[in-house]
Amino acid sequence: MFAEIKGLNEECGVFAIWGHKDAAQLTYYGLHSLQHRGQEGAGIVVSDGEQLKIHKGLGLVNEVFNPNTFSELSGHAAIGHVRYATAGGGGFANVQPLMFRSQMGSLAIAHNGNLVNANSMKHQLESQGSIFQSTSDTEVVAHLIKRSGYQTLVDQFRNALEMLKGAYALAVMNEHQLMVALDPNGLRPLSIGRLGDAYVIASETCAFDIIGATYEREVEPGELIVIDDDGLRSQRFSGSATRAICSMEYVYFARPDSNVDELNVHTSRKNLGKQLAMEFPVEADVVTGVPDSSISAAIGYAEQSGIPYELGMIKNRYVGRTFIQPSQELREQGVKMKLSPVRGVVEGKRVVMIDDSIVRGTTSKRIVNMLREAGALEVHVRISSPPIKHPCFYGIDTSNSGELIAANHSIEEMRVMMGADSLAFLSTEGLTKGIGRSDDVPNCGQCLACFTGQYPTEIYPDTLHPYAKV
Amino acid sequence: MFAEIKGLNEECGVFAIWGHKDAAQLTYYGLHSLQHRGQEGAGIVVSDGEQLKIHKGLGLVNEVFNPNTFSELSGHAAIGHVRYATAGGGGFANVQPLMFRSQMGSLAIAHNGNLVNANSMKHQLESQGSIFQSTSDTEVVAHLIKRSGYQTLVDQFRNALEMLKGAYALAVMNEHQLMVALDPNGLRPLSIGRLGDAYVIASETCAFDIIGATYEREVEPGELIVIDDDGLRSQRFSGSATRAICSMEYVYFARPDSNVDELNVHTSRKNLGKQLAMEFPVEADVVTGVPDSSISAAIGYAEQSGIPYELGMIKNRYVGRTFIQPSQELREQGVKMKLSPVRGVVEGKRVVMIDDSIVRGTTSKRIVNMLREAGALEVHVRISSPPIKHPCFYGIDTSNSGELIAANHSIEEMRVMMGADSLAFLSTEGLTKGIGRSDDVPNCGQCLACFTGQYPTEIYPDTLHPYAKV
Amino acid sequence: MFAEIKGLNEECGVFAIWGHKDAAQLTYYGLHSLQHRGQEGAGIVVSDGEQLKIHKGLGLVNEVFNPNTFSELSGHAAIGHVRYATAGGGGFANVQPLMFRSQMGSLAIAHNGNLVNANSMKHQLESQGSIFQSTSDTEVVAHLIKRSGYQTLVDQFRNALEMLKGAYALAVMNEHQLMVALDPNGLRPLSIGRLGDAYVIASETCAFDIIGATYEREVEPGELIVIDDDGLRSQRFSGSATRAICSMEYVYFARPDSNVDELNVHTSRKNLGKQLAMEFPVEADVVTGVPDSSISAAIGYAEQSGIPYELGMIKNRYVGRTFIQPSQELREQGVKMKLSPVRGVVEGKRVVMIDDSIVRGTTSKRIVNMLREAGALEVHVRISSPPIKHPCFYGIDTSNSGELIAANHSIEEMRVMMGADSLAFLSTEGLTKGIGRSDDVPNCGQCLACFTGQYPTEIYPDTLHPYAKV
Amino acid sequence: MFAEIKGLNEECGVFAIWGHKDAAQLTYYGLHSLQHRGQEGAGIVVSDGEQLKIHKGLGLVNEVFNPNTFSELSGHAAIGHVRYATAGGGGFANVQPLMFRSQMGSLAIAHNGNLVNANSMKHQLESQGSIFQSTSDTEVVAHLIKRSGYQTLVDQFRNALEMLKGAYALAVMNEHQLMVALDPNGLRPLSIGRLGDAYVIASETCAFDIIGATYEREVEPGELIVIDDDGLRSQRFSGSATRAICSMEYVYFARPDSNVDELNVHTSRKNLGKQLAMEFPVEADVVTGVPDSSISAAIGYAEQSGIPYELGMIKNRYVGRTFIQPSQELREQGVKMKLSPVRGVVEGKRVVMIDDSIVRGTTSKRIVNMLREAGALEVHVRISSPPIKHPCFYGIDTSNSGELIAANHSIEEMRVMMGADSLAFLSTEGLTKGIGRSDDVPNCGQCLACFTGQYPTEIYPDTLHPYAKV
Repeated sequence: MFAEIKGLNEECGVFAIWGHKDAAQLTYYGLHSLQHRGQEGAGIVVSDGEQLKIHKGLGLVNEVFNPNTFSELSGHAAIGHVRYATAGGGGFANVQPLMFRSQMGSLAIAHNGNLVNANSMKHQLESQGSIFQSTSDTEVVAHLIKRSGYQTLVDQFRNALEMLKGAYALAVMNEHQLMVALDPNGLRPLSIGRLGDAYVIASETCAFDIIGATYEREVEPGELIVIDDDGLRSQRFSGSATRAICSMEYVYFARPDSNVDELNVHTSRKNLGKQLAMEFPVEADVVTGVPDSSISAAIGYAEQSGIPYELGMIKNRYVGRTFIQPSQELREQGVKMKLSPVRGVVEGKRVVMIDDSIVRGTTSKRIVNMLREAGALEVHVRISSPPIKHPCFYGIDTSNSGELIAANHSIEEMRVMMGADSLAFLSTEGLTKGIGRSDDVPNCGQCLACFTGQYPTEIYPDTLHPYAKV
Repeated sequence: MFAEIKGLNEECGVFAIWGHKDAAQLTYYGLHSLQHRGQEGAGIVVSDGEQLKIHKGLGLVNEVFNPNTFSELSGHAAIGHVRYATAGGGGFANVQPLMFRSQMGSLAIAHNGNLVNANSMKHQLESQGSIFQSTSDTEVVAHLIKRSGYQTLVDQFRNALEMLKGAYALAVMNEHQLMVALDPNGLRPLSIGRLGDAYVIASETCAFDIIGATYEREVEPGELIVIDDDGLRSQRFSGSATRAICSMEYVYFARPDSNVDELNVHTSRKNLGKQLAMEFPVEADVVTGVPDSSISAAIGYAEQSGIPYELGMIKNRYVGRTFIQPSQELREQGVKMKLSPVRGVVEGKRVVMIDDSIVRGTTSKRIVNMLREAGALEVHVRISSPPIKHPCFYGIDTSNSGELIAANHSIEEMRVMMGADSLAFLSTEGLTKGIGRSDDVPNCGQCLACFTGQYPTEIYPDTLHPYAKV
Repeated sequence: MFAEIKGLNEECGVFAIWGHKDAAQLTYYGLHSLQHRGQEGAGIVVSDGEQLKIHKGLGLVNEVFNPNTFSELSGHAAIGHVRYATAGGGGFANVQPLMFRSQMGSLAIAHNGNLVNANSMKHQLESQGSIFQSTSDTEVVAHLIKRSGYQTLVDQFRNALEMLKGAYALAVMNEHQLMVALDPNGLRPLSIGRLGDAYVIASETCAFDIIGATYEREVEPGELIVIDDDGLRSQRFSGSATRAICSMEYVYFARPDSNVDELNVHTSRKNLGKQLAMEFPVEADVVTGVPDSSISAAIGYAEQSGIPYELGMIKNRYVGRTFIQPSQELREQGVKMKLSPVRGVVEGKRVVMIDDSIVRGTTSKRIVNMLREAGALEVHVRISSPPIKHPCFYGIDTSNSGELIAANHSIEEMRVMMGADSLAFLSTEGLTKGIGRSDDVPNCGQCLACFTGQYPTEIYPDTLHPYAKV
Repeated sequence: MFAEIKGLNEECGVFAIWGHKDAAQLTYYGLHSLQHRGQEGAGIVVSDGEQLKIHKGLGLVNEVFNPNTFSELSGHAAIGHVRYATAGGGGFANVQPLMFRSQMGSLAIAHNGNLVNANSMKHQLESQGSIFQSTSDTEVVAHLIKRSGYQTLVDQFRNALEMLKGAYALAVMNEHQLMVALDPNGLRPLSIGRLGDAYVIASETCAFDIIGATYEREVEPGELIVIDDDGLRSQRFSGSATRAICSMEYVYFARPDSNVDELNVHTSRKNLGKQLAMEFPVEADVVTGVPDSSISAAIGYAEQSGIPYELGMIKNRYVGRTFIQPSQELREQGVKMKLSPVRGVVEGKRVVMIDDSIVRGTTSKRIVNMLREAGALEVHVRISSPPIKHPCFYGIDTSNSGELIAANHSIEEMRVMMGADSLAFLSTEGLTKGIGRSDDVPNCGQCLACFTGQYPTEIYPDTLHPYAKV
């Protein structure tokens, strides 16, 4: 849930609402609850039936919007977006929603996911005269819509969707219609709710709870939904839709209070912890989890194993973007950021440390070391997901397998590197069982590619991007 | 730990360091870990042996300081302060440390606590020609030091201390010496640590962990400590010192990773939860705690009762001072702030909701209601401390007993008001046992005044302040 | 020079530099001296030979850039832009330079002027699949470049230029080349300078003085200049180029220290004042000018008439964007903004008040009234340009002739409306003579359209914009 | 008028108003017009008859106040202050008004000037137990008021005034009364105006014009004025009052639209220019003045000499506190700040450059050099005041005579140092005649100490401050 520690970064959260006079404000609260899906930038586009108005910027939702903003965002429909924090580039040009203006009207697009054929499509579009102002995939969608020969926006959008490959949960709005679509594998979550007569769409159901909306159903893989003054209409744009939802949403990304594809995330994570305890028990005095994303799994491990669950580490809540990082010298002297050990809990104890996943392994090493310095006698690391060995091409920022520690080292090597007394990862079967999806579809309807290397879509040569993807 | 929900506000945190070339930066990190003790303002005064330099401001530590600040704060000794968020007044003039300049040199003071004879002393000082620029008690200390007839700062400070009544953990620094003192009842916590050769003082030990310092011992009630180039010297300024540390530090204020008077706060809280389960068991499906301060007690209640511990509520981490509050209309439509229910956990369940304390009762009512709307069948409220019936005069912002719900209502009345299926408070004996202090001193060496009305010091008539105390 | 008073707004200033290691910083200073040409937004794109990097934002040059900015803008070439302050829309999307990214490289464009066939070209481009993200004309240029069938950027740009109608001073840069072009009528100023080996281009020569560059020559109407590692090359893209430079640059827009097309602006303005004194003398005690743009003309009027020149009004220098406007009630009680009368100068005097031009007339009325309240016996208004009766389509924000007071009222009507004792406007002949351009070309090579209605280019039907031009 | 160029810094401006419901807003506009007297900080204290409320901060008036500020500053009386920009220290603690709180009520003080016996009084007060929180003289006044044995604030203030030596224009306010006082020499200006029934006091009359108030009279030297619900009452606190107003107010500090002691500043300056032309004529082609403070004198020189007045230099209006200073390297390459030459005016010309005064001489040297680089054939420097040879102890920041170029060099030496073709300073007689004060009092009622070394008050040994005065 807190990307800065992990090195795993979700790409974005999407929110949309149709039919409420406070559309922009409700989108603000919705984006607020999706903030964990992206901290680099945020934006809202609103329609008042006559024109689209936009406000967006770099920073947290809190930082981008202020009370004055909303006086300029009156309207009954809105789409919003939070964008993830990337190390280097991108900047303002990539903050979404993107907005396009033509003499026939305006168009706004918000996107969560990653297109695997973006580069080949860009190449083709450029050869036909298209120009791009950002480095994001999302701009491709706008060009495809524009260049479709169809007359209505719905047909144009459907035509564009048929050309996209990869992961996408998309919200598109003009002055008169809101449309949302999910890729045929349903790689990213996208849910529909109601708030009185209004329709609400969000990447996670926690956005419904924060505004008091009620959950209705999931957007289906390969489904295109159109909402306008005539209500909601659904159609399929893909014949061969099979759900393959990202399993890392359950393991790490989604908020524990969200239901992803109708399963509560906290409950799934707790069950992952129980599975982990069954597969890899250990004799110890306390169980603790890396806050915040591993708390649920740690509770489950403790409940299953009978070892007490304790707060072994504390996360400093006030570390924000303006926090002054300690110098290398001070860090070596022991100055800590983000996590502090609870000495009173771990001192003289054999500790089971639950983490949800390992990407580069550097954070785990630091935590093990921190627990030892705080007096832990033994540190047993248990990971509530299998080793991540393969890059993700669907919107998770682990695209370089050179950085994935599990792609290059055995478990024993990793244990030594992080200085743990023991190390174990949940099995793929344990993962599937723990998440708890029905098992009558392939892979239980989930994507396991980062663990198994079996990708649910074609992977295009251009997925290994010719220029920096931001 | 998060004052904004509770209506209980700790007054301030203090940090001091002597003998480290990065004194200001280390103070910054120390204040950072004490941020939960005060969010209104923060400041650091540093000594380079020749002069004192100050930087302070309104806001969080993160907001007040930036990298450039430290280039102007070079020196080997520093004191720092975080001040709590008060509703109305105060403003910049009350942000600490206070600094006083004279032709003999400068003096800086940082204070956690509340003096019960501040107003009578102010009255007397004013009649002698003193003028005050803030409304804080702390300025009184400076005047007493200045007006003492003694020659050395140590004697002057000691003379001043003998006139102060109430709660105070004080740090005082001039160009050449750092002094700290604790009131004879030791009402507020204050600990000593070491970082290499440097001495470190802090309101809570979590400030030692964040900078890699090691805990040494508590400052004793009635102890005055002087640190300078000759090292650390201790003296007693009060003959009749008996520890009566604030029990709410264990229940609510302190960070769970701190040890307060050598007891770990998380462990004490977990034991309070266990005591609560023994005293007031209930048949239910899940136990949940109000984040963040009640999590430990909830874990204890669950462990003792055998009912599973779950995340029944989520706190939105990104709600900051710039968060736009929902309008009354949107709030009535269900827009939430700060806390969201985990519907997947509480729906169709009988829920035990653990809270650490109740002040006005309004938050509890809102939470019970929120859990019911999320589908909880029953909500049983269990409070891990006794009813707060009496005002605190030692630095906790509950000075008006008219606002204390438990001072004016029976438990059954409170239950009805908050809409719970049952409500129970931990007994005073359970509190004492749970915290776990040795029982061979009166009240186990803790202040229970807000529960019992028995105050460990005289209460002066002027404690009911003639003008607004800020 | 200070747009906020006048209601006449220049659209933008352009700066470019090639071949200096501090390209971005020098552009910053250059834009700084061009700030009077646009206060809404500013931006710089830099090339380091491998990629383009951009920084831009809303606000003054001072506000958009900070020292950290430049660490990310290393490179030897740059283009920069300041954009004028528009009342309503536009916002960030319209801030220039615009940047376009393709798989072949990036392209940045900065533009001063206005295209009269922008809408018809947009219409045509959209029908071919182009999409637009801003409402500015400048995006059209990028599309035309992209869609040209030519191979090299120079040919593509030249091809695009041949399709543009109206006023444009353009700077275009990719990783390897900088190009600048001026429309065939040379409606907007654009000059070339040298700074050591580096080439510098700017809308006004004051940008050369601020960085210590030396003036070389004007960019000629219809000239396309290419600068790269092989030096500077020039070509003509239009057979029928005739200079028709905007006469309002001399009257109002340009800085008095700039030379526009080799004539010093202060000198021209002083001569306009002298002409005005010859055409419309008056018996009076003092001459004063509306600061800052009318000072030079007032000096000229005084010198010619022999009436002493005095500071009759003072401009408050600290009125910025954060200035709190007085309420209507306070304004009626006499609270002033921007201008204060110098009572000691005007009291009991017959005053000649020189202004450079009148757009809506509201400011003039307020100034006349202010002078009377300060004790002026008579106020004789003299305008150092002819009445503005026709809209400008070339980049000056007077496109709505309904707002032009002189288009709808006689001079006597205007005099009554503004409460002056007398009112006179310089004749067109006086204007031409005063500016001092050689008279062997039609209209002396200047555009007088806003006075005469005779436009130097075709005016396309779409110039009366189908949607709001920003 | 723009202190940053000169190295001469006025210490502060004072504004006060009694009896207007918009007291705080009007003070804001008043301070705005006094901004040239101090740019470091600004503050307003307001009284609503029951309490004093304060808002102050570092920065320009624009930066310190925002619309929300005023909702917290309701009241019918206010005092305000702008503080000058000092190189080093001071910071927030010295921003005025200072506010003092006692159990009997609050007191606010705003001060323009400098006390010459501040340090000896501080010494004495400290020995009696007073403590100081700032390094400003103003705090001394509060202590003297507090320690006076008198019963009423008026008597206490009068008693304090009798102990002060030096220059002071003071405004003091409690909940019920506003008092202003001027030192017996009337060294600093202070005027009284009316706005309807309200009384207004200001350092300069330009503050009356901006709010539409009418001038009434000067506060007299040695006069104490009390304003409350019973109206305005005046008394004398000094038997031997003789006006000796700072002549640099006329030469440099005051705004040209202000009347200082009933003489218009622009007119005085213009007359100084005329005197200068009579005393030191020169054969030349153009006269130009250093903007903004020397413009009036240049106009006068031109008028008297018959040489045309021209804009030979332009000041960049957008240089603010966030302006990024050019690196030394860029400055050597010719990058300019603040002033640009008007090449078209000075090229090939013999230039008379008028400046109002010379402190260190470095700016003059830079301007002469700039004019030569712009092509001036000759540069004749004429200064419209005598050489400054002596430090000022009354509130002007030239207290170190080591820095005064004229204290250490002959005129010929200075001419060579600044590279001028000729250099001349106005005589003291010319100064007196030009300013135009009546000549029937010693020195025409003005202080000439910085030119002559004859100080109108005793100079105490402690005026050469034992610790840094800020």
